[in-house]
Amino acid sequence: MPKPPLPPHLDEFLSQPNPAVIASLRPNGGPHTAATWYLWEGGRVLVNMEGSRKRVEYIRADPRVSITVMGQEDWYHHVTLVGRASLEPDPDLEGIDRLSRHYMGDAYSARDQRRVNAWIDIESWHSWAMWRPWEQPD
Amino acid sequence: MPKPPLPPHLDEFLSQPNPAVIASLRPNGGPHTAATWYLWEGGRVLVNMEGSRKRVEYIRADPRVSITVMGQEDWYHHVTLVGRASLEPDPDLEGIDRLSRHYMGDAYSARDQRRVNAWIDIESWHSWAMWRPWEQPD
Repeated sequence: MPKPPLPPHLDEFLSQPNPAVIASLRPNGGPHTAATWYLWEGGRVLVNMEGSRKRVEYIRADPRVSITVMGQEDWYHHVTLVGRASLEPDPDLEGIDRLSRHYMGDAYSARDQRRVNAWIDIESWHSWAMWRPWEQPD
Repeated sequence: MPKPPLPPHLDEFLSQPNPAVIASLRPNGGPHTAATWYLWEGGRVLVNMEGSRKRVEYIRADPRVSITVMGQEDWYHHVTLVGRASLEPDPDLEGIDRLSRHYMGDAYSARDQRRVNAWIDIESWHSWAMWRPWEQPD
């Protein structure tokens, strides 16, 4: 699998508010998946979770994650990013608000949640466009 | 997480040709994710891979998978299925043709590939509809 940085056309793709699914590891070593908002920023990925989510504990115990991002209009274009997540509290809801503005155009509606950021450093990636590696812009 | 069977509204949802992402386990124990076609049939999930995909070897070594299925029009509705996959060869391309007809309306175009089916038995699941468990039909 290629190493970062990603080529410009994938950087552009990842900057859109796309659907994504993140995988982490359960305590028994099995995979856990969940749909998620993400933000692509300077080659890292930000996701944000409610503090009570099991996923927070999973990532704390083992930071290895993989996230597959699909095109909003065309899920046959997709990019997978593999890396390690670092948790940090989001006491002012700055992280979740940034995500919510990116996807919904407005700050996050629930203001009484304890939220946690996870910043993912990318170690490798791969990309597909209609059953071929997405090596060039369409 | 709830156990099977799934309620009828989720059975209906899973029967559509939805985008999905499957997670398996790499040899180092880290998660691997990939976008995938799937078929929901009698409470089991069929996916199909080209025989040379690393994912085939990953699943052979550890059958634990998790698959998150998102709505075609609305990815804020999603269902995650956790289970174990059993591999079987697909020498006549029957499996990949069924998937291709479900998603594309026609048999799979590439006829010279070695393909492998993976049948996933579901052990647990969870569902979300706009940030809440998707417990009732919309």
